[in-house]
Amino acid sequence: MNQIKNNWFTESCEMWPGGTFSIQVKEVLHTEKSQYQDICILDTTNFGKVMVLDGIIQCSEKDEFSYQEMISFLPLCCHKNPEKVLIVGGGDGGVAREVVKHPKVKEVVQVEIDAKVIEVSKKYLPFMAVGFDSPKLTLHVGDGFEFMKNHSQEFDVIITDSSDPVGPAVSLFQENYFALMKSALKPNGIVCSQAGTMWNDITLVSNTLKFCRNQFPRASYAYASVPTYPSGQIGFVIGSLDSDIIFDTPSLVLSAEDLKTMNLRYYNSEIHKAAFVLPTFVRNTLA
Amino acid sequence: MNQIKNNWFTESCEMWPGGTFSIQVKEVLHTEKSQYQDICILDTTNFGKVMVLDGIIQCSEKDEFSYQEMISFLPLCCHKNPEKVLIVGGGDGGVAREVVKHPKVKEVVQVEIDAKVIEVSKKYLPFMAVGFDSPKLTLHVGDGFEFMKNHSQEFDVIITDSSDPVGPAVSLFQENYFALMKSALKPNGIVCSQAGTMWNDITLVSNTLKFCRNQFPRASYAYASVPTYPSGQIGFVIGSLDSDIIFDTPSLVLSAEDLKTMNLRYYNSEIHKAAFVLPTFVRNTLA
Repeated sequence: MNQIKNNWFTESCEMWPGGTFSIQVKEVLHTEKSQYQDICILDTTNFGKVMVLDGIIQCSEKDEFSYQEMISFLPLCCHKNPEKVLIVGGGDGGVAREVVKHPKVKEVVQVEIDAKVIEVSKKYLPFMAVGFDSPKLTLHVGDGFEFMKNHSQEFDVIITDSSDPVGPAVSLFQENYFALMKSALKPNGIVCSQAGTMWNDITLVSNTLKFCRNQFPRASYAYASVPTYPSGQIGFVIGSLDSDIIFDTPSLVLSAEDLKTMNLRYYNSEIHKAAFVLPTFVRNTLA
Repeated sequence: MNQIKNNWFTESCEMWPGGTFSIQVKEVLHTEKSQYQDICILDTTNFGKVMVLDGIIQCSEKDEFSYQEMISFLPLCCHKNPEKVLIVGGGDGGVAREVVKHPKVKEVVQVEIDAKVIEVSKKYLPFMAVGFDSPKLTLHVGDGFEFMKNHSQEFDVIITDSSDPVGPAVSLFQENYFALMKSALKPNGIVCSQAGTMWNDITLVSNTLKFCRNQFPRASYAYASVPTYPSGQIGFVIGSLDSDIIFDTPSLVLSAEDLKTMNLRYYNSEIHKAAFVLPTFVRNTLA
């Protein structure tokens, strides 16, 4: 890894020039070049285990729960009866871990393009890969885009947990991807996609939201605080076929006891609502 | 500046070990060692002008509005009639710039300990130092702690815009500081202090909130997204002498027209409410 110097790994990406995050490394546990990307696992001094794909931090043991819980529970708790869920991407297992916690979820199908990511996560990130152990889950290795072409009106919720739109995930940020998800949804279905940060990528956010709005009668942007992502924040585009939906009012309200039982460390029913409240400059840009 | 290598400035602080933010520098515009701290102004490639005190980024032209607006408008909009405001610290002028925008504010007193910070901001950060131009403002150079000893029951709102509790600001995070602010407040007065990030400094947040709760009948924690602060987030401890106050419901609600006129790019009345909604792990720790 030429991004490691004197035991510090430095992230670098053309998408957010001029500012960069570095993380102190105890040990490089694994590196390999898969068919799709460079995969690296770091053991760090203060963020636990960290997965890096193509030089970009995907998750750290310290803060991954924020992202995984929010990308899962925002759409699940908007839906009245999310029985069957499709996860596209999410090869570390973190989203699967969260989705199967929802009491109404009966069946989860996951399509991850890179078998190596799954394998490496199982070996080094068991706190996330535990998601693969659920009897509710069927895991396919393949292209989510191609997979959906053969599945019509099948899912209540589709969650796209992708890397950023450079490399293998670029097709997941296009309008035809939203069209494809729409056709794979049951009536009143909901989609939720990783959609970039408001501070660095407002054009990406705006475009992704526009594509979603073109395909779905209702669409919105929500966000969460994740320190190891650029600008310390990441957002989600969420779209629904139910034109009466009120995104910021969850269908399922979780009690303090529920949160404890389900080990939800970031998500709660109040932060669900707050996640849709945008700073003025974002609200104006996305209006 | 030994923190600059190959045109990248790297922040470093014992308060958040193992992870660090770096920013690409076009030019070092100014460095000096004042009586209190090292002061540095950078011109950067993507964040505009940046002020660094004792090696820590205080504000960047790109995102400073988020912090300045929130630390000012959260307490001001909670108070029914914030006519007289004290600002402790805030030597860059950004908080003064925001406070004087509030329609009910008649008089602002500011006490900044380091005259050099004011001088440097006036020269290099005019977009912030514009706050010093208001006829509503009286600016004192001195110790805010000492200043308040001679001012009893005088202010409606006290805003403490300090650096982190290492160096000159350490006394502003102690319980006797909250006791002193309490004595300087009029009945139903409100205080708001910079209080660290929930991800890196939950013990600091928890202690500061405890000190505030010991002195004020009502106290809470709120936060904002600020990419150039560690973990991309910063919080505020807010306390009120009015035991009937509901912090998350602003007394003054701003219209879209108000936001435009007042040039509020982050704060709005909905984000006021959302700022008090905490992730589950923070809520549990601060309960």
